[in-house]
Amino acid sequence: MRVVLVAGTTKTAKIPGLSAAGADPSLVGHTPSADAEIIEYGDTVRSPVTPVSPTGCPTPAAITRAVRELTGFDALVVDAGLAEPTAAPTIDVGAKPGRDIREADPVPTAPGVFEAARQLGVAFPEDELVIGETVPGGTTTAMGVLRALGEDIPVSSSLPENPTGLKEEVVSEAFDASGISPEQTAHQPELAARFLGDPVLPVVAGLTVGALEADIDVTLGGGTQMLAAAALVRHAGALGDVTIATTSYVADDVPAFATAAESLSLDLVVTDPGFETHPLSQYAEGEAKEGAGMGGALMLADEMGVLDDVETAALDVLSRLDPAAVDGVEDGP
Amino acid sequence: MRVVLVAGTTKTAKIPGLSAAGADPSLVGHTPSADAEIIEYGDTVRSPVTPVSPTGCPTPAAITRAVRELTGFDALVVDAGLAEPTAAPTIDVGAKPGRDIREADPVPTAPGVFEAARQLGVAFPEDELVIGETVPGGTTTAMGVLRALGEDIPVSSSLPENPTGLKEEVVSEAFDASGISPEQTAHQPELAARFLGDPVLPVVAGLTVGALEADIDVTLGGGTQMLAAAALVRHAGALGDVTIATTSYVADDVPAFATAAESLSLDLVVTDPGFETHPLSQYAEGEAKEGAGMGGALMLADEMGVLDDVETAALDVLSRLDPAAVDGVEDGP
Repeated sequence: MRVVLVAGTTKTAKIPGLSAAGADPSLVGHTPSADAEIIEYGDTVRSPVTPVSPTGCPTPAAITRAVRELTGFDALVVDAGLAEPTAAPTIDVGAKPGRDIREADPVPTAPGVFEAARQLGVAFPEDELVIGETVPGGTTTAMGVLRALGEDIPVSSSLPENPTGLKEEVVSEAFDASGISPEQTAHQPELAARFLGDPVLPVVAGLTVGALEADIDVTLGGGTQMLAAAALVRHAGALGDVTIATTSYVADDVPAFATAAESLSLDLVVTDPGFETHPLSQYAEGEAKEGAGMGGALMLADEMGVLDDVETAALDVLSRLDPAAVDGVEDGP
Repeated sequence: MRVVLVAGTTKTAKIPGLSAAGADPSLVGHTPSADAEIIEYGDTVRSPVTPVSPTGCPTPAAITRAVRELTGFDALVVDAGLAEPTAAPTIDVGAKPGRDIREADPVPTAPGVFEAARQLGVAFPEDELVIGETVPGGTTTAMGVLRALGEDIPVSSSLPENPTGLKEEVVSEAFDASGISPEQTAHQPELAARFLGDPVLPVVAGLTVGALEADIDVTLGGGTQMLAAAALVRHAGALGDVTIATTSYVADDVPAFATAAESLSLDLVVTDPGFETHPLSQYAEGEAKEGAGMGGALMLADEMGVLDDVETAALDVLSRLDPAAVDGVEDGP
């Protein structure tokens, strides 16, 4: 069993106010590279920053790493358009960093990476894959892709207050820039990803389509971005069993999540890690919520009977990443 | 503890008669990509071929994989100029495939990748690294680098009959093409690698220099190519403890190996896997001998008390890679 982290970037994340995946917009480009290192090594290596939200909420990659330390799952990172160096080994599928979706053709590599990822998915010598994603700004591109496919599914946010109005505005400008209309790319997933998306979504979708062809069990571990990836899979005509595993934080934030999962014929697993200790308690306050495979990792932790140990293990990971963040436990924030 | 496989290519390997790392010269470019997949997954994934020598001797990557299955070590692949796609995740240090050393500037990226690898070596969050290599044609480039540094150390071969005359001729042409003389790049390891080498040697040397700076124990797992890498390390002025771990097949082939290791202040470990069963018995007949970290993996197997299990485990790996090759066990070759 492997957890595959699909890691990439979109310049869309640089729009102020869209993403909490970095202390400020200048740092979001490092977040996927750092997340990959944290899952691979339990620490940052080449990356100059440890990803936190603007309020200091730690990256969900730390939770995925904690589950890896508890369960020993194999990890694997696919480069879906990383913009900064990472010391995590990555698989190349030809992806480049995505441009701002308000440009005419933000992800020209989408059709090519979809196909390369599909071929990789077919070839994986595994029985079971859990796929996660890390791409700051990804809920905005997910909104764009869902609209392009004609799917009426809402998206969540890594911020406590979802900047829905701003996202609507960005997605509207993206449709204008690429000259297509909502619903126009139904059943053309490569075009939806190319004109409204980011490079991560076609890689996740391609891996999933390929794995289904090879009878590999697939779990998409994530939130509403994974609903967008699953929509791409269904619009590609792939009908096999797919599970979506998310956190209780996303499920609570998006009441329509279960309905959306059902509309895409996905089995839904929601896991509550029960975080109570600072800084992890910020998740219960609506920060971050999901990402870097967290929902999938929590599902595995639950299946292996170690869910109750995740908080302690995650605090241990965080103490290595940034001792100051966890010292706050005793002193209060 | 990690085993790092530094995997790359040099067009030098296309010269007929130089390398046994492929059934014929047209296939040697796939060998490092396939070796990386075999160590990562225990099977080829994207690679269209399973590397064997012209006589059918299996790649040493199968032995390294067998030891991984016995001991559970973490593996990591650095892309030191791969020419073909691999499904193994790789770390990027900016390397490109090396050109034929009979061209004027075959590895212009050598200084840059040495420095990028050094920085990676410093940053690895590990206490101990075993570094292996896979680069067809690598003993010829190793000869070039050793001569450029002024080190009087002979090189081995993946062929039973070392084509020493041909290698001398190629290296002589390489000196002519680059306009430098033997010994001229002593204490300038980046230039020796750039003008006479392949992209793998400066990556191995850079990783080692960086790891030594960070007080990480380093074992170079390989044959005379690793002597060339160690020479680059010493000519870079790095003085720390370095072990070289090779197979008995290389040590038997190069009587001067121990003396050379001593002259470079390397601790030497020689391990005999005792292969007796076809097709692994070809190793005892002088085929392949070493590569893909085999000597380092055998050292680990010995340290962990599983050396006697390696042959059976390797036959099991081979039966997955190519059932026909191992069916020969019962029928004879």
